[in-house]
Amino acid sequence: MSLLNLEKSELDELAAQVRKDYEALKAEGLDLDLTRGKPSKAQLDLSNDLLVLPGRGHYTDAAGNDLRNYGNQKGIKELRDLWGKLTNMDPELLVAADSSSLNIMYDLILWAYTFGTNSSEKPWSKEETIKWICPTPGYDRHFAITESFGFELISVPMEEDGPDIEAVEELAKDPQVKGMWVVPMFSNPSGAVISEEKTRRLAAMETGAPDFRIVWDNAYAVHTLTEDFPEILPILDIAAEEGNPDRFWAMSSSSKITFAGSGVSFFGSSEDNLEWYLEHAGIRGIGPNKINQLAHYEFFGSAEGVRAVMRRHAALLAPKFESVLRILDKNLTHHEIADWTHPKGGYFISLNVMEGTATRVWELARDAGILLTQAGSAFPYGEDAKDHNIRLAPSLPPQEEVEAAMDGVATCVLLAALEKLGA
Amino acid sequence: MSLLNLEKSELDELAAQVRKDYEALKAEGLDLDLTRGKPSKAQLDLSNDLLVLPGRGHYTDAAGNDLRNYGNQKGIKELRDLWGKLTNMDPELLVAADSSSLNIMYDLILWAYTFGTNSSEKPWSKEETIKWICPTPGYDRHFAITESFGFELISVPMEEDGPDIEAVEELAKDPQVKGMWVVPMFSNPSGAVISEEKTRRLAAMETGAPDFRIVWDNAYAVHTLTEDFPEILPILDIAAEEGNPDRFWAMSSSSKITFAGSGVSFFGSSEDNLEWYLEHAGIRGIGPNKINQLAHYEFFGSAEGVRAVMRRHAALLAPKFESVLRILDKNLTHHEIADWTHPKGGYFISLNVMEGTATRVWELARDAGILLTQAGSAFPYGEDAKDHNIRLAPSLPPQEEVEAAMDGVATCVLLAALEKLGA
Repeated sequence: MSLLNLEKSELDELAAQVRKDYEALKAEGLDLDLTRGKPSKAQLDLSNDLLVLPGRGHYTDAAGNDLRNYGNQKGIKELRDLWGKLTNMDPELLVAADSSSLNIMYDLILWAYTFGTNSSEKPWSKEETIKWICPTPGYDRHFAITESFGFELISVPMEEDGPDIEAVEELAKDPQVKGMWVVPMFSNPSGAVISEEKTRRLAAMETGAPDFRIVWDNAYAVHTLTEDFPEILPILDIAAEEGNPDRFWAMSSSSKITFAGSGVSFFGSSEDNLEWYLEHAGIRGIGPNKINQLAHYEFFGSAEGVRAVMRRHAALLAPKFESVLRILDKNLTHHEIADWTHPKGGYFISLNVMEGTATRVWELARDAGILLTQAGSAFPYGEDAKDHNIRLAPSLPPQEEVEAAMDGVATCVLLAALEKLGA
Repeated sequence: MSLLNLEKSELDELAAQVRKDYEALKAEGLDLDLTRGKPSKAQLDLSNDLLVLPGRGHYTDAAGNDLRNYGNQKGIKELRDLWGKLTNMDPELLVAADSSSLNIMYDLILWAYTFGTNSSEKPWSKEETIKWICPTPGYDRHFAITESFGFELISVPMEEDGPDIEAVEELAKDPQVKGMWVVPMFSNPSGAVISEEKTRRLAAMETGAPDFRIVWDNAYAVHTLTEDFPEILPILDIAAEEGNPDRFWAMSSSSKITFAGSGVSFFGSSEDNLEWYLEHAGIRGIGPNKINQLAHYEFFGSAEGVRAVMRRHAALLAPKFESVLRILDKNLTHHEIADWTHPKGGYFISLNVMEGTATRVWELARDAGILLTQAGSAFPYGEDAKDHNIRLAPSLPPQEEVEAAMDGVATCVLLAALEKLGA
């Protein structure tokens, strides 16, 4: 029965039981970590062939270039071709870079800040105020980047089919609003997938700033938890069709496909945007690690090869997600104090607990040896106005630890709610 | 006999012969490239074991961390230990990063510009003027970085034992002068090695700017052309001893040791400087490619392992350098119109032709199918006031091509001088 309908005496009775459960939980002396979206050892093992790739005697691309030497800022062609096919992008508009797309996003914004984009009248640093739209809950590392430049971060709700588009359209009219973050597929942390309708509206909307940019971080483009792969919208085509070809800076990477942190990242954008990017990248360095790019090409073989790897990831991840959902459902649904997302892909489940208790849940869990992502971390400045959101990251720990942790988390959610209700 | 002592008729006679030589050269239809300091195929072959490293089942560091996963912004400890031993630095003050130290230099200067260093009162972008000391001839990519931020580049002569130190000490008193470039060993392009005396004066000198930084790019620290390795000065110790521990940002990398562009780079600096660097690096990304770091550690095994590789490079490079010097000597010494360096390491020979003729030499060579580094490229803004310096890069082409190219270059140097003398 819903906690909210209980009499005071019933609440107290339940609280006594839950406090006992919590003490028992603490006594278990757990040491569990659900904080970050890291792949597990079993997932990493799927890519162990990379440890001996590209392989003895393999160091040229299809065109015969020696990849051991300097050069080729854009990355090797066969890998760009493969990735273009996988992500529905013209490979000519795709740069293959080093391991992390976060690096590219940071550089893009820093260069826009310091030098101005190819569509800017002046460097963003010369603007009095820069505002940035942040769909929330969202990715803490995104917010950290724009916060580090002193941008004013404006939250808009992330809905099941993408950001609240009316709110975005309204905000974008302000010339001080220079851009926004979007994770279009299996979004961090809710798992939302943006609809084509919202995508087209983002591409078509009028913006006050002529150099408005959407960082389209397709970090989970193929990170399904099922056998199915949703269509990846051809974002650069859509941008061009809607008359704003320079609007999107699109990223993806192999970070959670092969080895986290030693993969390959990709940046797709319009010809003009790429020219601007490559001009600065060409001052910053001589080119990406092409040997690692070749290794990845050899490892995948084709776009279908990438999907084959992702199905094996799904086979490892899906049971953990199912456990989380089953345990939340069993322990919390009937109390009606929390809800959570049911993602079909990605790395997270977004758990909304009773308002005003997320920080307390985090503390209770920590004291019981279960480390959760800090409450509020999915919001700009780490501030969740409702103090109700917790990001669950079940990928890293083994199945039994996920289950033990979630049993404990459910107890903490319930206890915090009871405390809040004065029980 | 010196060209300068010849009668007009003798000059004309010589010129007729040299023009014939040049026409014959053009008729050969050469297609040779001495432009950049790229390693040759044979040099790259020395590191082919990397194509199958770190090796099946190898993915943990000595402490047992799984290097396939995220984390460790500072890089893996065993590689930092090895490199610290090799380069005479405390490994605790050493960050192991991705392939290119140029990237680190760029980021350091960009972050200083945008955010200010840990010793800055304000971001460098807020200063009215920033000046930067550039020992010349020097490295074009260094100059391109500081030029891209609009710094005023001030040349000081690079002497055989390092930059003109009196000039540097005088310039550094100006608070608008925020730093300088130095390639301390086997410098690009002259091959100069800085003395300990000059190093200590750089470390000790008073600077007008409290946040004055020396980018100590030890790109050729172990790149000997002989069997000998000069001592690598313990730059961070020297800086501390001289009372300015934060003065140096020190770089090195494996770029011309293993594969160019897919190696490992290193950044050494004071504790405070590193803290500042890592704080920004931690927003920019999640960490370096640790699998590639492990591969390099496995490949080298020890500091002595690095030197063993470098001796094999020297065996391949030294004959090319000897050819260049022999041909220049045979064809040009007696004319007394040019001089050149005799480096004991590094990748370049710095050739000074008759003043006012370097651009013409470059054109003549290009028209004969010999591509040289653009005249002036070793100077800020690409402007060699005397128009006399040409950087020779003999590493990439095979021995016989180096010889053919240098025969041709000597002809071009002579012809340009004769033209200049009106013959």
